[in-house]
Amino acid sequence: MNQPTSQSETFGLRDLQSLIATMYSSRDEVRGIEGTFMWLMEEVGELAAALREETPDEAAREFADVLAWLATIANVAGIDLQTAVLEKYGRGCPGCGHMVCKCDLSEKP
Amino acid sequence: MNQPTSQSETFGLRDLQSLIATMYSSRDEVRGIEGTFMWLMEEVGELAAALREETPDEAAREFADVLAWLATIANVAGIDLQTAVLEKYGRGCPGCGHMVCKCDLSEKP
Repeated sequence: MNQPTSQSETFGLRDLQSLIATMYSSRDEVRGIEGTFMWLMEEVGELAAALREETPDEAAREFADVLAWLATIANVAGIDLQTAVLEKYGRGCPGCGHMVCKCDLSEKP
Repeated sequence: MNQPTSQSETFGLRDLQSLIATMYSSRDEVRGIEGTFMWLMEEVGELAAALREETPDEAAREFADVLAWLATIANVAGIDLQTAVLEKYGRGCPGCGHMVCKCDLSEKP
């Protein structure tokens, strides 16, 4: 894992999963995916509130929490987030295949 | 940005934000934070369904979508996710300060 205290180094999705596993894996196993999903939802709600009402610093802390809980769930489910992102988005937009999306604007995403 | 097609390289949170910005920034600006949050919530719902009912490959695709929308919102809000995570979790558990969390099990997280 990269040293997580250095802001200038690349901090990867695998570093995130590894950091969260080190910090919380014993708890995560007890809680399981469903219990952990409840915490994720709480943090998503706090992110929404922070984006509407709070400072950028507070929003940043809520983004961190959402990412931490998402990494927790991925750890419990045995999913590698880097592989997941690169498989789906690494070759371009999943809708149109272009690196700069050319999907119709009415379409998702 | 790292080459996103190489699975062995570290793919960072900044690479994720950069990839999504390249792919979707013109759309993101039109949609704004509130419109984008709706898409994030839809993907969070799809992740929940995939974790309950689908294969690991399908769950991985939904994790990728949640991360993509989270990166989109961070881009629109001007938040650097790497800095956000390292500020909050890089020095240990925000609750107890230890790298292996020692918070009381009844407490969050």
